[in-house]
Amino acid sequence: MDITRSLAEWLVAQRLEDIPTDVRHEALRSIVNIVGCAVVGSTHPAVDISLRALGPFSGPATAQPLARRERVDPLLASLVNGISSHVYDYDDTTPGNYSHPSSPVASALFAYASANRVSGRDFVHAFILGFEAESRIGNAVYPAHYDAGWHITGTTGVFGAATALGRLLGLATEQMIWAIGLAATQAAGLREMFGSMGKAFHPGRSAQNGYAAALLAREGFTAGERSLEGPRGFAAVQASAYDLSKITSGLGDNWDLRVNTYKPFPCGIVNHPTIDGCIQLHDEHHVAPDQISAVRLRVAPLVLDLCNQQNITKGLQGKFSVYHGAAVGLVRGKAGIQEYTDEAVNDPSVKRVRERATAVADPSVTEDQASIEVELADGRTLTKFIEASLGNLKRPLSDRQLDTKFCDQGVLALPRAQIDRLIDLCWKIDQLVDVGELVRVSQPA
Amino acid sequence: MDITRSLAEWLVAQRLEDIPTDVRHEALRSIVNIVGCAVVGSTHPAVDISLRALGPFSGPATAQPLARRERVDPLLASLVNGISSHVYDYDDTTPGNYSHPSSPVASALFAYASANRVSGRDFVHAFILGFEAESRIGNAVYPAHYDAGWHITGTTGVFGAATALGRLLGLATEQMIWAIGLAATQAAGLREMFGSMGKAFHPGRSAQNGYAAALLAREGFTAGERSLEGPRGFAAVQASAYDLSKITSGLGDNWDLRVNTYKPFPCGIVNHPTIDGCIQLHDEHHVAPDQISAVRLRVAPLVLDLCNQQNITKGLQGKFSVYHGAAVGLVRGKAGIQEYTDEAVNDPSVKRVRERATAVADPSVTEDQASIEVELADGRTLTKFIEASLGNLKRPLSDRQLDTKFCDQGVLALPRAQIDRLIDLCWKIDQLVDVGELVRVSQPA
Repeated sequence: MDITRSLAEWLVAQRLEDIPTDVRHEALRSIVNIVGCAVVGSTHPAVDISLRALGPFSGPATAQPLARRERVDPLLASLVNGISSHVYDYDDTTPGNYSHPSSPVASALFAYASANRVSGRDFVHAFILGFEAESRIGNAVYPAHYDAGWHITGTTGVFGAATALGRLLGLATEQMIWAIGLAATQAAGLREMFGSMGKAFHPGRSAQNGYAAALLAREGFTAGERSLEGPRGFAAVQASAYDLSKITSGLGDNWDLRVNTYKPFPCGIVNHPTIDGCIQLHDEHHVAPDQISAVRLRVAPLVLDLCNQQNITKGLQGKFSVYHGAAVGLVRGKAGIQEYTDEAVNDPSVKRVRERATAVADPSVTEDQASIEVELADGRTLTKFIEASLGNLKRPLSDRQLDTKFCDQGVLALPRAQIDRLIDLCWKIDQLVDVGELVRVSQPA
Repeated sequence: MDITRSLAEWLVAQRLEDIPTDVRHEALRSIVNIVGCAVVGSTHPAVDISLRALGPFSGPATAQPLARRERVDPLLASLVNGISSHVYDYDDTTPGNYSHPSSPVASALFAYASANRVSGRDFVHAFILGFEAESRIGNAVYPAHYDAGWHITGTTGVFGAATALGRLLGLATEQMIWAIGLAATQAAGLREMFGSMGKAFHPGRSAQNGYAAALLAREGFTAGERSLEGPRGFAAVQASAYDLSKITSGLGDNWDLRVNTYKPFPCGIVNHPTIDGCIQLHDEHHVAPDQISAVRLRVAPLVLDLCNQQNITKGLQGKFSVYHGAAVGLVRGKAGIQEYTDEAVNDPSVKRVRERATAVADPSVTEDQASIEVELADGRTLTKFIEASLGNLKRPLSDRQLDTKFCDQGVLALPRAQIDRLIDLCWKIDQLVDVGELVRVSQPA
């Protein structure tokens, strides 16, 4: 089957009017969420460093990264947006393949829209198509691809950015096939980077490389035309097992946006049931941190595969420590951006509880679940079993909870009034005559 | 073992005086060869397209691609150099891992040197170190990595560029570790691109991405510190079997430059014994093309794995057709750049002989060998067995043959006098006060 060609033909021909209303609304929710992440992420040192290192090589400064003052070229703006929107690990997740799909796609699109007049309608359409291409390619290679050590957000993100930009640039089918090929041959990103700035580099580079792939394809730079399904194509090379039919089956009927989820906590999603349960225990029992003598977790095996770090000193490491998640839930009763700073990780109360936590991998516990047992100095034992974690498909964040999430993190970077204005623009992005307006409103005073 | 750290420490501390003379001379041979390739490659449409697509996004135009008039930023110049020096598949090959090691390293270095004053001494030193890092990493994952479908020139090239630039930029050990990490997490390039411009994109992007990795690392952009050996690092993720000791064992004693080889023909190296033999048959028997009724080849199995295309219409496809190689050898008695154009592939005499060629994979034939049987209309059968192909380690091109190769291809792009001047500068590059001079001399009038 010509998977690459079929996908390209669909991407070129698909019409916004044929996308159901609920899918279009979910696109708005994804955009609200990712812009909120980019706003707070824009203040992260990784963003400053990337601009300091690569800013001197920026082309004509026609574009602007979200929530930054700098003017740079749109390719560099894509990179910066990708870093800022993922660096706090607070962006969206598709539970079918554990990728963070919005960052690469939205990062390239906002960079483009800050430099070129794009209507909200075209923007949202391109976003939905890029998201769909990327997420379906992820579904085809998950879990073997992810299990092998690929950071799927990076490897599939480049397809999302290339196809979204390809659609905005009006590529014909053959050009879209090359754009997909040039994306495939740049698909990269190792999970070995987790815990360093290298992780957020992945969606950034994916956005930038996908954008470049679309530009090159438009000018006739050729690529292999069976880059997804060929014997040395993306799936065969980067996954020991895969199902290519997931890329094309039900295209236009089933939409992966419908199964997108938004994190209530800015850390590895597998930690969420534990954090959710620990916050509930905090709120129900108001235990003083120094009364906690032991915390015993039973979690899905993947949790320990990804988040088994206990002896940590950095905020970034905290995101991949289920013990830290349990500790901040129990000690502070919340797990926002402020709970994943270096300061929070080294907070003596948090550290003390974290060091008293143990975890057991239990195959009977799903990745949405966690079982928590807290032993207190007075001999009592508190328990909590989380059946479905807040933020997952069974307990999705409401539109209002997304606003609150945006606001809670956004005010760390921008004044409240500006945040309110930005949230408002995100919800009505599909009606904007010029999406660049939203980027300009995100600029710090 | 801390492979990444050991490699980084060596790269930071190694001294040019401790590199043996023969290795330094082989570096000059590699540089002569790669500059010649870049000169003729600079006229290829893939280079024009890349500049047309990405030139508008170029940063301050402080750099210059080899043999081009354009001024662009050094990152874009790296990309262009990588495309031009590999696009005719005429660059060097290390038979231990089948990578084309000079393109990514030299492409980044010449881009840097065209924008920054670099002495020939420092340039050659950085080249040797980048080459060594890249080739050793290739050795560690070859053959499983290549067999899986990775274009090893792309995947290892990014390490070569990152470490060479890292050394020129004077990175400290920790920064070099991050540069290697940021290289690892950008390692990409699928063999599915073979036969399209996407193949030459690989060393180009590797040069550009490696350069960016070094810039980011210098400013403190962090990366995983066990990017080569970690459980989700480059080797574990991108090869089903590997030997990491090949990266560090004998560092500073054994030099991969000593086993570098230079192609006499601008196509897949596995075709070379067949072409060599067919040229010899042409020169010995002067057979008229229309007298050839059949060509029967016995070749190493890898030849058919890589170069089994017979029904072809494009020059690029000719490079991956052992049948085309046999045909041009027999019909034209040579196999230079002009034998791999669209015109040559569609030349009726060549096409006729190509269509009469058959090949059998024979495990008893090594990749340096080929057995050729040509059946003539008059009933005669000519045979030739090539024991060791021209250009391989047993029959290396001499310095003078490298000059001839440079000249033969160079005059397709630049006047003879300019080519002579350029060849001269390449041989004495280690004595130049400013390597930028060489790049400026390569500019077309």
